[in-house]
Amino acid sequence: MKIAIINGPNLNLLGNRQPEIYGGKSFEDFLKELKSQYPNVEFDYAQSNVEGELVNFIQEMGQTHNGIILNAAAYTHTSIAIGDAVAAIDIPVVEVHISNIHARETFRHHSYVSKYAAGVIVGFGMKGYKLAVESLLG
Amino acid sequence: MKIAIINGPNLNLLGNRQPEIYGGKSFEDFLKELKSQYPNVEFDYAQSNVEGELVNFIQEMGQTHNGIILNAAAYTHTSIAIGDAVAAIDIPVVEVHISNIHARETFRHHSYVSKYAAGVIVGFGMKGYKLAVESLLG
Amino acid sequence: MKIAIINGPNLNLLGNRQPEIYGGKSFEDFLKELKSQYPNVEFDYAQSNVEGELVNFIQEMGQTHNGIILNAAAYTHTSIAIGDAVAAIDIPVVEVHISNIHARETFRHHSYVSKYAAGVIVGFGMKGYKLAVESLLG
Amino acid sequence: MKIAIINGPNLNLLGNRQPEIYGGKSFEDFLKELKSQYPNVEFDYAQSNVEGELVNFIQEMGQTHNGIILNAAAYTHTSIAIGDAVAAIDIPVVEVHISNIHARETFRHHSYVSKYAAGVIVGFGMKGYKLAVESLLG
Amino acid sequence: MKIAIINGPNLNLLGNRQPEIYGGKSFEDFLKELKSQYPNVEFDYAQSNVEGELVNFIQEMGQTHNGIILNAAAYTHTSIAIGDAVAAIDIPVVEVHISNIHARETFRHHSYVSKYAAGVIVGFGMKGYKLAVESLLG
Amino acid sequence: MKIAIINGPNLNLLGNRQPEIYGGKSFEDFLKELKSQYPNVEFDYAQSNVEGELVNFIQEMGQTHNGIILNAAAYTHTSIAIGDAVAAIDIPVVEVHISNIHARETFRHHSYVSKYAAGVIVGFGMKGYKLAVESLLG
Amino acid sequence: MKIAIINGPNLNLLGNRQPEIYGGKSFEDFLKELKSQYPNVEFDYAQSNVEGELVNFIQEMGQTHNGIILNAAAYTHTSIAIGDAVAAIDIPVVEVHISNIHARETFRHHSYVSKYAAGVIVGFGMKGYKLAVESLLG
Amino acid sequence: MKIAIINGPNLNLLGNRQPEIYGGKSFEDFLKELKSQYPNVEFDYAQSNVEGELVNFIQEMGQTHNGIILNAAAYTHTSIAIGDAVAAIDIPVVEVHISNIHARETFRHHSYVSKYAAGVIVGFGMKGYKLAVESLLG
Amino acid sequence: MKIAIINGPNLNLLGNRQPEIYGGKSFEDFLKELKSQYPNVEFDYAQSNVEGELVNFIQEMGQTHNGIILNAAAYTHTSIAIGDAVAAIDIPVVEVHISNIHARETFRHHSYVSKYAAGVIVGFGMKGYKLAVESLLG
Amino acid sequence: MKIAIINGPNLNLLGNRQPEIYGGKSFEDFLKELKSQYPNVEFDYAQSNVEGELVNFIQEMGQTHNGIILNAAAYTHTSIAIGDAVAAIDIPVVEVHISNIHARETFRHHSYVSKYAAGVIVGFGMKGYKLAVESLLG
Amino acid sequence: MKIAIINGPNLNLLGNRQPEIYGGKSFEDFLKELKSQYPNVEFDYAQSNVEGELVNFIQEMGQTHNGIILNAAAYTHTSIAIGDAVAAIDIPVVEVHISNIHARETFRHHSYVSKYAAGVIVGFGMKGYKLAVESLLG
Amino acid sequence: MKIAIINGPNLNLLGNRQPEIYGGKSFEDFLKELKSQYPNVEFDYAQSNVEGELVNFIQEMGQTHNGIILNAAAYTHTSIAIGDAVAAIDIPVVEVHISNIHARETFRHHSYVSKYAAGVIVGFGMKGYKLAVESLLG
Repeated sequence: MKIAIINGPNLNLLGNRQPEIYGGKSFEDFLKELKSQYPNVEFDYAQSNVEGELVNFIQEMGQTHNGIILNAAAYTHTSIAIGDAVAAIDIPVVEVHISNIHARETFRHHSYVSKYAAGVIVGFGMKGYKLAVESLLG
Repeated sequence: MKIAIINGPNLNLLGNRQPEIYGGKSFEDFLKELKSQYPNVEFDYAQSNVEGELVNFIQEMGQTHNGIILNAAAYTHTSIAIGDAVAAIDIPVVEVHISNIHARETFRHHSYVSKYAAGVIVGFGMKGYKLAVESLLG
Repeated sequence: MKIAIINGPNLNLLGNRQPEIYGGKSFEDFLKELKSQYPNVEFDYAQSNVEGELVNFIQEMGQTHNGIILNAAAYTHTSIAIGDAVAAIDIPVVEVHISNIHARETFRHHSYVSKYAAGVIVGFGMKGYKLAVESLLG
Repeated sequence: MKIAIINGPNLNLLGNRQPEIYGGKSFEDFLKELKSQYPNVEFDYAQSNVEGELVNFIQEMGQTHNGIILNAAAYTHTSIAIGDAVAAIDIPVVEVHISNIHARETFRHHSYVSKYAAGVIVGFGMKGYKLAVESLLG
Repeated sequence: MKIAIINGPNLNLLGNRQPEIYGGKSFEDFLKELKSQYPNVEFDYAQSNVEGELVNFIQEMGQTHNGIILNAAAYTHTSIAIGDAVAAIDIPVVEVHISNIHARETFRHHSYVSKYAAGVIVGFGMKGYKLAVESLLG
Repeated sequence: MKIAIINGPNLNLLGNRQPEIYGGKSFEDFLKELKSQYPNVEFDYAQSNVEGELVNFIQEMGQTHNGIILNAAAYTHTSIAIGDAVAAIDIPVVEVHISNIHARETFRHHSYVSKYAAGVIVGFGMKGYKLAVESLLG
Repeated sequence: MKIAIINGPNLNLLGNRQPEIYGGKSFEDFLKELKSQYPNVEFDYAQSNVEGELVNFIQEMGQTHNGIILNAAAYTHTSIAIGDAVAAIDIPVVEVHISNIHARETFRHHSYVSKYAAGVIVGFGMKGYKLAVESLLG
Repeated sequence: MKIAIINGPNLNLLGNRQPEIYGGKSFEDFLKELKSQYPNVEFDYAQSNVEGELVNFIQEMGQTHNGIILNAAAYTHTSIAIGDAVAAIDIPVVEVHISNIHARETFRHHSYVSKYAAGVIVGFGMKGYKLAVESLLG
Repeated sequence: MKIAIINGPNLNLLGNRQPEIYGGKSFEDFLKELKSQYPNVEFDYAQSNVEGELVNFIQEMGQTHNGIILNAAAYTHTSIAIGDAVAAIDIPVVEVHISNIHARETFRHHSYVSKYAAGVIVGFGMKGYKLAVESLLG
Repeated sequence: MKIAIINGPNLNLLGNRQPEIYGGKSFEDFLKELKSQYPNVEFDYAQSNVEGELVNFIQEMGQTHNGIILNAAAYTHTSIAIGDAVAAIDIPVVEVHISNIHARETFRHHSYVSKYAAGVIVGFGMKGYKLAVESLLG
Repeated sequence: MKIAIINGPNLNLLGNRQPEIYGGKSFEDFLKELKSQYPNVEFDYAQSNVEGELVNFIQEMGQTHNGIILNAAAYTHTSIAIGDAVAAIDIPVVEVHISNIHARETFRHHSYVSKYAAGVIVGFGMKGYKLAVESLLG
Repeated sequence: MKIAIINGPNLNLLGNRQPEIYGGKSFEDFLKELKSQYPNVEFDYAQSNVEGELVNFIQEMGQTHNGIILNAAAYTHTSIAIGDAVAAIDIPVVEVHISNIHARETFRHHSYVSKYAAGVIVGFGMKGYKLAVESLLG
C-alpha cells in the first residue's frame, strides 16, 4: 500500500506560524508519527506553494500510488486546474482540511476538488490525515 | 465512552431503497457491526424524519453522551434550528454524510451544521460513521 | 386502484379560513364528492402540519398505494426532505396546488417536489385533485 | 364549447424528433383522438414557431373561443409579449407542458405565462392536453 | 418632416382591452388627432406583434424618415435585436411607454432600447407620443 | 384578556445554556413574574422544537385567545408554514426576538413572520415579551 | 431621566398626509400625550429631513441624554453615516418604525441602524414610541 | 398655472463644467428662455446639493404649486427620502434627466422617484424641461 | 456536400451600416467569394430578422443539408427556441459570430446555441464563415 | 501650494470616541502638526456631517486650491453626488481612509469616489493624510 | 511565418487519460501532422501546468513569433494574469478549446482571455488548432 | 531598515509595454532612484509571474525584513494563497497598485490582500512605491 500526501500553499508553515490555524507541530514531525502508526503503508510527501506543481504531483503520484491525501489549502477554493487533475487520475483522492473551513470566511466554503474526491474530511486538525489513511485502508 | 448516532430524514430507508444514494445495508445491521468493532464504546441510536425531534435528540443526548455523530440528511441544508441545537451543547458533534454531497445538487453544498461541528466527514458511505467514531476516540 | 392524498400545513383550514386562498369547502366534504365520482378508486387521506410526518406518510403510502396526490403547501418551497422522500418511492406522485402559486410571492415559485413528480397541477382550486386522479387513472 | 389549442416553437416536430422530449406521436394524430373523446367540443388548432404569431393567435382566439390550451414551449420562459396577450383576454388560458420542465435546465423553470393562466399542467406528456380539456369543461 | 411611429406587441389592442394599461382610445383615432395637430408633419404608422417585423420597420423607416417614435412594448425588455436595429440607423429614435413601467413588475424596468435612444418618455399615456413629436421638432 | 405565548426551537434551553444568547433565567420563572405584573391577563404558554406543532399552536390559540406573542426562533427564518399560519388567523400576533437578530448572521435578518405580524420587537432580552404584552393591551 | 426622540425625513408630515402610512395625528400632539403619561421623564424632540443633521442630533444628544428613540425613516435603509453615529455614542438607542416596514417594499427591509440599536420596535403605529420609552425605563 | 422646478446636486454647475454631461448653458439663462416661451406660467426655481433640502422643497412646493419638475440628479438613484416626499404630495411630479442615464453607469439606471412620478423624461438635454412643462399643461 | 448558412437579425445590414461591427462588405458579395473558393460545396443562404423564421430554417435545412453555419446574432443571447431547434436536428451546426462578443456588453457573452453546437467560432470577422466551412469539410 | 482637507460624517469625533476606529487625537491637533511639517503649504480644513455640504466644499475648493484630500467617511459608500462633484472639478482629489475599510463590513468595500480620485490611501491611520500631502507635492 | 502553440494545465495528458475530454492522441503526435500539413509554417510548442510559466511563455513568444494559439485550459476561467499577458503583447492570440466548454460546468463558460483574443474557437477537438492556424494565415 | 519590494505578474513589463497601464520606466531604473532617495534603507527586489513563488517570497522575506511593499498585480484579485501568506507573517505589508484599479474592470476592484495589509495605496503610478516606503518609515 503506497499513499501520497500532497499539501498546498502555506502548509510548509505548519508548526511555525498562526498555530490557531496551522497547528503547533511541523508536518515532518507529524509524518514520522503517522509512519510509525502505519508501518505497512509506504508514505510519500510533497508540498508546494505553486498551483501548477500540485497539478504535477497529482498527475505523477496518480500513476504510482494507491491513493492520495490532498490538502490543497487556499487553492482548494480557486483552482479548477487542481480539480481537473484529480478528475483525470484513477486512484482515490481524499480531500483533507485541518481547520473547519465552514467556520471561516465564505470564500473558503466552496471547493473545486470535492466533486471529484473519494471523500472529504474537514476540521479535525492533524488527525484528519490519519482518518484519511483509515479511509484508504478500506 | 458513550456515543450517540442521530440520523435524519429518509435514512430509515437505508438498505431498502435507492442503494446508489442510501447504500445496500440497513443501519441496524451496520450498527451491529460497529458495536462489535468497538466493544468498549456504548452506542445509542436515534432516527427521525421530524426536524424538531432531531433538535430534541441533540439537546437530550448532548447532556448524557460524550459525543454525537449526526447525519441530518436533507435538514442539513435547511435547518437553522438543528444548527442552533448543535451550537447549544458542549460535547463534540461530528457531521457525517454518506454520499458526496458536493457532487450532487447545489442546494446540498451548504450546511447549517458544519460551522458548529467538531469536524465533517463526507462521501465515504457507511464507513464515514466508523471514521467519526475514530475521530471521537481521540 | 388505491390512491393516497396527502395534504401539508394549514390545509386543515380548508373551508374555514381565508377562502380566497384555501377555498370555501372543507377537504373532508370535498373528499366525499371525489369518492362518489370515482367509486372504483380506494382513497386514503392524510394531513399534517409537521414536515416529518409528511415524510412518514409518503414513505408508508409509497409502499401500499398505486399513486399519491401530494399538496405539500408551504413545505413545497422549503423541504428538501419531502423531495427526497418522493424521489425514494416507486409509485407516481402528482403534485397539486390549489391556488396559482406563480401569481403569489416569489418564494412560492420554486418547488423541491416538482423535479421528482410524475406531473404538476397548479391553480385549478379543488378541481386540481380531480385532475390528478384522472392523470393517475391513465 | 369551443376550445383553441395553441402550440409554440418546435412542437411541429412532435412525433418526428427527440421522442424523449417531444413524444412519439404527431400532434395531428393526437388531436384526432382528442376530438373523438370529446365529440361535443369543437377544437381549433394553431401552431407557430414565431412568437408574434402566437400573440396574434391568442388575441384572435381569445375573442372567438371559450378557452385556450397554450403550450408556448421555449417562449414560455422568454416572452413577456405572450404573457401580456394572455393577460389581455377574458377567457381562461390553461398552460400545458408535455415534459417536466422542473426536471430540465434552470432557465425552463420560470414562466411568463403562469401568472395569468387559469391553471398550469406540467409533465404528463400528451395526456396534459386532455387534463386541460377536463379543467375547461368545469 | 417625416416621422414614423412604430408600436409593438399587443398595442393593436389599444382602446379595446385593459383600459387601465392600454388606454381607452384606439391608436388609429389618436393618430388622426395627432395629424390634425401637426399638419406639417407627415406621419407613418406601423404595428406588429412580431419582434422581427419591428426590426424590419426600424431598418426600413430608418432610411426614409427624419425620426422614429418607438413603443416596443413587451419587446422593450427582452429584445436585443430591436436594440441593435436602433443602434444601426442614423435618425433619432424616441422611446415611448404609455404606462409607467417603473411602477409595474421589475422585469419591465430594464430596456434594451434606451441606451441607443435619443430620449425616453415614460408614463404620460397617449400624450407621450405628442411629447415625442415635440422633441423631434427641435 | 387572554394572551398566548408561543416559543420555538431551543427556547426550552432558556436559563440553561448559552446565556449570552438565551439569557440567564428559565422561561417558566420569567412567566411567573409576568403573571404577577399583569394579574388581569390570562397567560397560556406553549413551546415546541417541532415546526408543525408551532403551526398547530398558532391555529388553535388563534381561535381561543385575544392575542399571540410568538418567538419562532430559528423557524422565523425558514418557515413559510408558520408565516402562513399567522396569516390565517384573525387575532394580532406580536413577533418577539430576545437577541438582536440584526447583529447576528445574515440568515437571521429575514423573517417569514414579520409581514403578517401586528408588530415586531427585537433585541430587548426577556423584556421584549413584556413590551409585547403592553402592545396587546392597547 | 432624559430621553431624546429624533425623527427623520418626511415625519414632519405626520397627521397631515398619507394617514395609512404616517398616521392621523401630528407628532407634536402625540408628544403632549406622551409627556403627560410619563411626567418624570424629560423629553426632547428633534426632526430633520437632512441626513447630516440627524447625525448631528445623535452626536449631541448622545452626550446629554439617557437614551434616544430614533425613527430615521427613509434614511434607515440608506445611511451608513447615521448607523456610524449610533455606534459612536454610549447611551442606548431604540429604533422605532411606525409602519410595518417588512410588509412594504423590499428596500425597506434592511436597516443600517439595527445592528447598533439597543432594540428595534416595528409596526405598532405611534404606540411604538411609548413602547420604546417603556424599554428605556428599565 | 404655477410650476416649480427643483434641481438636485451638482446641477448648479450647469453651463460651467463638463458640458458633455451638464450642457453649455447655465440654468438661470435657460429659465429666462422658458419663461418667455410660457408667459402664462409662473415658474419657481430651487436648487440644492443637500438631499434633505430637496425633501423640504418638494414638501413645501407640493402645497403651493400645480406641478413640480424634478431633476434629482445623483440623489435619484440613492434617495428613498426624496421618493417618499414625492409620494406624499398630491400634485404631479415630472421626473427629468438631462443626459441619457441608461447610457451611463449601471448605478444610474434605477430611480427611487420614477415609481411615484406622473411621468419620466430622459435624455433630451435642456429640452427635457420644456417637454415636462408641456406635459403639465395638459 | 450541401451547407446552409443562416444569418439572424440585422445581418442583412452587412456592408451597409456600422462597419466596425458588421464589416464593410455585403454578405451576398462575400458569399460569391466563398462559393468560388469551395466549388465542390453547394451553399444555400437564408437570412431573417424574425426569430421563428430562423427556427423554421433550422428545422427545414436540418433535413436537407449536411451542415449548418448559424449566426443567430442578437437572438443568440435570448432565444431558447433557436437553441431547441438546433438540439432537435441531427446534422452539425457551427455557431459563428463576426465580432468578438466577449469584448462587447455582458448580455452578449451567453449563448443558448453553444451547448448544442458542433463548435463555436468567434471574432474573426467574415473569415469566421470560411473557418466554419473548413470545420464541416472534416 | 494650497491644499484643502475635507472630512465627512462623524470625523468630528476624532480623538473623542471609538479610538480603535477614529484614533486618539482630534483632527485639529493633528492639523497643527501637519502645518508645522509642511510650512510652505497652505492648508484649509472643512468638515461636515451633511452630504450636500461636502458637495459644496468640493465644488468651491475645487476652484480655489491646488489639490483636495477627501475622507468622505460613510458617504464614500453611498454618495453618487460626492463622486459626481469630484468628477466635475479639475484639481486632483486624493481619497483617504483612516481605518482599513477592506477589513471592515462588506458595505464599506465599495467607494463611489475612487473611480475619479487621483489616488487612494487606506488604512494608515492619521498618517494617511500626510502621505496624501506627499502625493500632491509631486 | 512563426506560430507558437501554448497549452495549459493537464493538457500534457492528451492521449493518455479521459479521452472523452482530452481526445485520444498525444499532442506531440498531433503536432507532427500539423507540421506536415503546413510545411511553410514554423511551429513552436510549450506546455505547462504552472500559471505563471504560461505568462512567461506568452510574454516571450509574443516578441518572437507572428501569432500564438493559446489553450489555457482550466486557467482560462480563473487567470486574470494570463489575460493581462495576452493584452500586453502585440501579435494576435487565438484562443482554442478542444471540448465544448459551453456544454460543461457553468464555471467553464467565462474566459478571462477571450476579451483580448483575436478570435475564439471552441469545441472542434484537435481540429480547432488547425482552424486557428488557418485564421492566422490570413 | 530593510524593505522588500515584491512585484507580481506582468510587472516585469514595466517600461516596455502598455505605458498607459504599466508606466514608461523599467522597475530597475525606478529602483535606482528610490535607493538614492533613501540611502539608509536597504532594498531587496523580487518579481515573479508565478503565484506560488510570490507566496515563497512573502514567507521568506517576512522573516528577514522590516516591511514588505507588495504589488501582486492580477493575483491580487484571485489569490487566496497570497492573502494567506500575508496573514501568516508578522511584519507590515503595504499593498500598492500603480494604476487606479477602481477605474478599471469590476473584477479588479476586490483584493484578497487588503484585509491583511497594513495599508493600501492605489493609483499614484510609480510614486505609490515611494509613499509606501514613507509609510513604513513611520
